[in-house]
Amino acid sequence: MGNNDLVFPVGVAGVGCAHRVPVPASKPFLETFRTNLKETFFPDDPLRQFKNEIKPQRKLIKGLQYFFPILEWAPKYTLDFFKSDLVAGITIASLAIPQGISYAKLANLPPILGLYSSFVPPLVYAMLGSSKDLAVGTVAVPSLLMASMLGKEVSAAQNPGLYLHLAFTATFFAGAFQAGLGLLRLGFIVDFLSHATIVGFMGGAATVVCLQQLKGILGLEHFTTATDLVSVMESVFTQTHQWRWESVVLGCCFLFFLLSTRYFSKKSPKFFWISAAAPLTSVILGSVLVYLTHAENHGVQVIGYLKKGLNPPSLNSLVFSPPYMMIALKTGIVTGVIALAEGIAVGRSFAMFKNYHIDGNKEMIAFGSMNMVGSLTSCYLTTGPFSRSAVNYNAGCKTAMSNMVMAMAVMITLLFLTPLFHYTPLVVLSSIIIAAMLGIIDYETAFHLWHVDKIDFFVCFGAYFGVVFGSVEIGLVIAVAISLLRVLLFIARPRTTVLGNIPNSMIYRRRDQYPAAQAVPGVIIIQIDGPIYFANASYLRERISRWIDEEEDKIKLKGERSLHYIIMDMGAVGSIDTSGISMLKEVKKVVDRRGLQLVLANPGSEVMKKLDKSKVLEIIGQEWIFLTVGEAVGACSYLLHTCKPGTMEGVNEDGVACANVV
Amino acid sequence: MGNNDLVFPVGVAGVGCAHRVPVPASKPFLETFRTNLKETFFPDDPLRQFKNEIKPQRKLIKGLQYFFPILEWAPKYTLDFFKSDLVAGITIASLAIPQGISYAKLANLPPILGLYSSFVPPLVYAMLGSSKDLAVGTVAVPSLLMASMLGKEVSAAQNPGLYLHLAFTATFFAGAFQAGLGLLRLGFIVDFLSHATIVGFMGGAATVVCLQQLKGILGLEHFTTATDLVSVMESVFTQTHQWRWESVVLGCCFLFFLLSTRYFSKKSPKFFWISAAAPLTSVILGSVLVYLTHAENHGVQVIGYLKKGLNPPSLNSLVFSPPYMMIALKTGIVTGVIALAEGIAVGRSFAMFKNYHIDGNKEMIAFGSMNMVGSLTSCYLTTGPFSRSAVNYNAGCKTAMSNMVMAMAVMITLLFLTPLFHYTPLVVLSSIIIAAMLGIIDYETAFHLWHVDKIDFFVCFGAYFGVVFGSVEIGLVIAVAISLLRVLLFIARPRTTVLGNIPNSMIYRRRDQYPAAQAVPGVIIIQIDGPIYFANASYLRERISRWIDEEEDKIKLKGERSLHYIIMDMGAVGSIDTSGISMLKEVKKVVDRRGLQLVLANPGSEVMKKLDKSKVLEIIGQEWIFLTVGEAVGACSYLLHTCKPGTMEGVNEDGVACANVV
Repeated sequence: MGNNDLVFPVGVAGVGCAHRVPVPASKPFLETFRTNLKETFFPDDPLRQFKNEIKPQRKLIKGLQYFFPILEWAPKYTLDFFKSDLVAGITIASLAIPQGISYAKLANLPPILGLYSSFVPPLVYAMLGSSKDLAVGTVAVPSLLMASMLGKEVSAAQNPGLYLHLAFTATFFAGAFQAGLGLLRLGFIVDFLSHATIVGFMGGAATVVCLQQLKGILGLEHFTTATDLVSVMESVFTQTHQWRWESVVLGCCFLFFLLSTRYFSKKSPKFFWISAAAPLTSVILGSVLVYLTHAENHGVQVIGYLKKGLNPPSLNSLVFSPPYMMIALKTGIVTGVIALAEGIAVGRSFAMFKNYHIDGNKEMIAFGSMNMVGSLTSCYLTTGPFSRSAVNYNAGCKTAMSNMVMAMAVMITLLFLTPLFHYTPLVVLSSIIIAAMLGIIDYETAFHLWHVDKIDFFVCFGAYFGVVFGSVEIGLVIAVAISLLRVLLFIARPRTTVLGNIPNSMIYRRRDQYPAAQAVPGVIIIQIDGPIYFANASYLRERISRWIDEEEDKIKLKGERSLHYIIMDMGAVGSIDTSGISMLKEVKKVVDRRGLQLVLANPGSEVMKKLDKSKVLEIIGQEWIFLTVGEAVGACSYLLHTCKPGTMEGVNEDGVACANVV
Repeated sequence: MGNNDLVFPVGVAGVGCAHRVPVPASKPFLETFRTNLKETFFPDDPLRQFKNEIKPQRKLIKGLQYFFPILEWAPKYTLDFFKSDLVAGITIASLAIPQGISYAKLANLPPILGLYSSFVPPLVYAMLGSSKDLAVGTVAVPSLLMASMLGKEVSAAQNPGLYLHLAFTATFFAGAFQAGLGLLRLGFIVDFLSHATIVGFMGGAATVVCLQQLKGILGLEHFTTATDLVSVMESVFTQTHQWRWESVVLGCCFLFFLLSTRYFSKKSPKFFWISAAAPLTSVILGSVLVYLTHAENHGVQVIGYLKKGLNPPSLNSLVFSPPYMMIALKTGIVTGVIALAEGIAVGRSFAMFKNYHIDGNKEMIAFGSMNMVGSLTSCYLTTGPFSRSAVNYNAGCKTAMSNMVMAMAVMITLLFLTPLFHYTPLVVLSSIIIAAMLGIIDYETAFHLWHVDKIDFFVCFGAYFGVVFGSVEIGLVIAVAISLLRVLLFIARPRTTVLGNIPNSMIYRRRDQYPAAQAVPGVIIIQIDGPIYFANASYLRERISRWIDEEEDKIKLKGERSLHYIIMDMGAVGSIDTSGISMLKEVKKVVDRRGLQLVLANPGSEVMKKLDKSKVLEIIGQEWIFLTVGEAVGACSYLLHTCKPGTMEGVNEDGVACANVV
């Protein structure tokens, strides 16, 4: 160890001499910039696989496989895989058809759109998506959100043509926004919707969707357009004379049937297909029942005529001119983000189960493309719903081929079977929606949040109540605002703690966490838990002063040795900005003025670099910066012991200036 | 040390047995809630001084002194103090009178308002404010901001009465907002305007203010209402034939005079009064010159008639009804925050110099009260400007009494001397404003930012260019947006680093910072620098996987011992939420599936508590959690050495299960 490394002999521990903390060599700006850019936008280093590849041909193939994952799995596809995918595909189709029709009704769109949307987007996703388990389709919450946001500007009942066009346009914008986020590698924006927020928001939205189904179940013809609990309850109970008992009985029977099959499948997972087939069974049973009893003439509403044939093109329907473009844009962005959050989360969970990797940004491009193509072929917003993907997974799907099988099944339905849905009673669709939504209300997670983290619980709770008592948009705004507020509070109030010595060791730990940790006389060791930024610099300055005040008060009360050294453990300060550096300078001044000595322990390279560049290092003095808290305490104790107390002047016998001591 | 504490003998280091990390006892929810609330809103513990007081009478006096700092310093006030304050007060009055008139013109308000605003608010602040050095008065940037925001709705030229009423109302709202922030202890919101943002924004605003003065200097009668550089330049150069040389010559002379006195005072600080008296001297000289030469008839514009007498009440002028209330509210909040940011920063800096404490929240209440009272007595927005406070400080002020002296001097001016300002040329006011503004453009700090922290520099730069090329509001929005974005990026991308062993020690440090730190064969040690939250959980999961991938690639290339242990140093993870806990659970699964063992080192109490409550602790296994990285490495090395490689099954000779190893 060179001479430069020796700062103080480490007195108390006597292990040797203290290590030095060097100022890191400064790097060229462009290099730092490039590194930071990479960490921010390419943390998963997606191009790593290409780096080791030398042949340009292999590179091209790998590149194509990167953008079209189908090229990766298709060549290795086997008959065994196909058998599994066939079963899975048919199973999810049997779920997709009734759910598609139901959710299209929820979005105030023609029911046939639900079938269209289960045909084209799955095919696109099968080409571009990297998840093997995701089943593509429409989802309830974005459907409801679309109805409520577009419905504010254009009535679906009075102007169905314009409303439909705006729905396609919103889908297009949603897709463009999703793909844009992915291309610009801004996928992390979705991470700012925390899990707690999503649980609360989704639960609230599911509750609202269930409430809306009371219209179908009760067979009401007039219903409030508001979605909040109070308005819906008022609407339901002011027209009790309009309730149709036929509808109620039918609805309750089917709901009971659907819920009991789900309960059964949950108990014994190998019978997953029972609950998967239940919605289609309900539709068939309901339709047959209505057809035989002519219940459509006795107050049971039915779907009616569905056009035969595949998706018509809808390029000409897109509206790119004011005044309606703005509402479509807004709706597209909001529903697009919600759909994305669900789809990405679902893709990731199943990838986690089966141990393969999913690139979030690539998935966003896949979702975006499927929605943009969908918007040109009479589809509305689709994503990867959890319930359907779980069925797909349970049915043993192997690749995205199951989505293609589903698309084929839907195609056959569109071409030949649409007349069969003529007599399907709306009340069955309502039951299907309610049964699906009850599964989304995740009260178990809410309990878990309450148990583990109260703040997360309140975030969840706030989002839920915002949706149920306000509106879906209000709930979303509340949820995002609470999430952001939480982030800001996190940053604004980092924790500071006082450390003590773990007996018989050189280890220093938080005294509130380890009751055995002992204070060192004459020294206070403050640890800062987190980065120092402009948003918390003032707080930290005040808080450090308060720690010193409190320690001095305590010493006065107990009559112990007075305070001489303030050791700040900077090990947890990962990063610092100029406000943070100014804060350290001010703390140094305050500490000096109180006649104390500031000592830093274990500063990171960024802290050292900025201390050096801003010349604050000279003010603090590099000899007062130590590699570990243990060495800092050792040096302080050494000085306290070897220098004469009281005056503390001159030089001790080792030649170290005691003037430093006080 | 009890039997429970022994987990593994620490092999390599051989120092003894490893310490255990206990799960902290869970505290009642309300207690945690109270502690968190206190840390968030009362970090400085303002009531600490009352706790040790037993007598209720003393408590009352201390309480009154807390709310009215004047009660604290007035009883101890001495004649010596008064002499100092008298000199300081007269000095700042000589600055306040011309600046007050100038800034009122800048805000498109009658010039007399500048004098009114230097009379009542300083008196209020002297009662409530805790700074000894702050000189109260109007400021340029909020004045300009008020003119630009109110001017959008109401023209000051066409409807001066309404404009004036809105200015009073905006001042009232600004005061109410400031006092509200202080009362609710939300002062930390102001901290979110980072220093870099403020430097950029203020510099930009000062540039804009200077540009606006070209109207006065060139003697133009028509001028653009836009504030951006392009519009102003266009306006100036399209009417070159309107430039008045008399005005230009006069303006340049006075500007040269003001700047050279400032330069001189800066060189020898004891002649501070030369630059302090220069504006008033300019006003007197200019007025005499105009009076003698009758230049007002030759294109030199003058102030004209100023009403004699003290502030008239303005309670009836406040506008609390739509449609104008909203614009006043918006203007009040924006200008109030900007004024607050300046005032608090100035108060804090001088308190730092003189070593006394300022409570930011209490200062906000003082500023708020002074503006609310001001709005009822024909004053507009005031705060503590830096330039005037610096003069106050240099003039040797001792207490807030200097503000009272200034107020008295302004009162005498209002009562007797206003006719003297009749012939004051506007061009002198423009020169005074330009001279003051050139001091605000803090290019030195901008250079410093570039040198120390590039991101802070770009934040500063963005705010500056937003103001100069957009508008003051656009600049403000850009500044706040960049600041917030920076906070979010901070949170979204915490740094992770790989640690290595500092030779001949049990210390583990970042390998990028300490080149001497050596990797431990078979083990990778990853340190997470910062809290784990929903906003960064996905990133960290990906990043940890990448560290492992990269390490395995490296090992493959070098043919070293394969990886067995992933040690995560959690020492810098100050806090964690449920998303973070889920992330750890997922990392554990991924690591398991790769046939590796996850080991945690030094988790904090919050991490341990939440791991325990969420049962993730059982999944990770408490025996795999160590107090220090050194002990974790010791245990891993011990197992790697004692267990038979290859199979790694059964039990080694010490009775530790080798199955744990892989």
